[in-house]
Amino acid sequence: MSDPLNAGALAEIIGCTPDNLALYDLALTHGSTGRADYQRLEFLGDRVLGLVIASELYTRFPRASEGEMSSRLHVLASGATCASIAQRLNLTALVRFGAQARSDGGRYSDNIAADAIEALIGALYLDQGADAAHAFILAHWGDMIEGQQVAPKHPKAALQEWALARKRRPPEYEIVAREGPDHSPRFRVAVSVGKLARAEAEGTSKQAAEKAAAAALLAELEGQSE
Amino acid sequence: MSDPLNAGALAEIIGCTPDNLALYDLALTHGSTGRADYQRLEFLGDRVLGLVIASELYTRFPRASEGEMSSRLHVLASGATCASIAQRLNLTALVRFGAQARSDGGRYSDNIAADAIEALIGALYLDQGADAAHAFILAHWGDMIEGQQVAPKHPKAALQEWALARKRRPPEYEIVAREGPDHSPRFRVAVSVGKLARAEAEGTSKQAAEKAAAAALLAELEGQSE
Repeated sequence: MSDPLNAGALAEIIGCTPDNLALYDLALTHGSTGRADYQRLEFLGDRVLGLVIASELYTRFPRASEGEMSSRLHVLASGATCASIAQRLNLTALVRFGAQARSDGGRYSDNIAADAIEALIGALYLDQGADAAHAFILAHWGDMIEGQQVAPKHPKAALQEWALARKRRPPEYEIVAREGPDHSPRFRVAVSVGKLARAEAEGTSKQAAEKAAAAALLAELEGQSE
Repeated sequence: MSDPLNAGALAEIIGCTPDNLALYDLALTHGSTGRADYQRLEFLGDRVLGLVIASELYTRFPRASEGEMSSRLHVLASGATCASIAQRLNLTALVRFGAQARSDGGRYSDNIAADAIEALIGALYLDQGADAAHAFILAHWGDMIEGQQVAPKHPKAALQEWALARKRRPPEYEIVAREGPDHSPRFRVAVSVGKLARAEAEGTSKQAAEKAAAAALLAELEGQSE
């Protein structure tokens, strides 16, 4: 394999030395490599995450209704929450991609970040057992479960809601420029809400640039109105 | 409490003596009693069931794709599958209802049967631990996970599909009679598919009667065409 897993960085993220490194290798392999990828482990890890969060909510909030717990679980296990935790751990730096996905900026995609952390949880569950997976999830989701920290809202979703709430047209994104070599592209994206406002931002992928542009426009709009 | 939990029947179903009977008491209490009910435990048990089935599918079918495992999990954890297992265990006989729900035949509803077995799994998980819950699920879902047994199809769903596949009108159900005292009612229901066919059947609830009528009509229709 041309791009071996960085076992040292992995051990730091999971807080222990893996017994079966092959599981983590699989958890951090994207389908674009043409090799067996993380999807099966993501399927498993998603259920591990769901149960751990459900049991924490059950225990910590004895007076919460089933509906309240369902809503909180939905947010806590959402792609946006998973992605933000994965990005904080810099987990996608360990994911191996095929050449094309790499040049498309897959390394920076929120979807892949969310998938990778679920797959990592699946690998940890199989390799170190349910208690270790539980401890890993508590370490990274714990504050949010307790409700001391709200789940981060994706800037694109927040901008969409901003426009909707004010009966404006939905945000429109446009690639203004794509520069740099294939292995290290830069995207410049413009976002506008009708004729009301416009912002531009750069990123190493289309998604990253859109996210940055949405955040910039949102900051501008909220600065005006509040 | 006027209707204590039948602890002997419970111990037979779960295969052990509970440490914390209050959890099972909650798992087998319907909201119509006006007391705290099984919904929170059902929320938890649903995730326990999901993880156990997912991990079994992962281990037993190493070549199945994520999509194949998702489809199988969907069927195995469906309300229809849960209800059929609960009915086989006669679990709803242990559920305590309010007077009104009892006279409406709630004891025989498939939805309640499915909810109750998930709540029971939640109670078992909290009371006896993850391994005990895993063993209980394997004992009752094991053959279906292995694929030796297909998930049962509900007669009403099967009849609906039969009509759809032959471009017939959807089945229509009608209560023909409601007899007997409130604490022990009998329902007679007629089902028809356009002007093609009609059948009647009885049950101790509207749902049970509809199910029996659908099964009767299906048997008649399949007898004609095959």
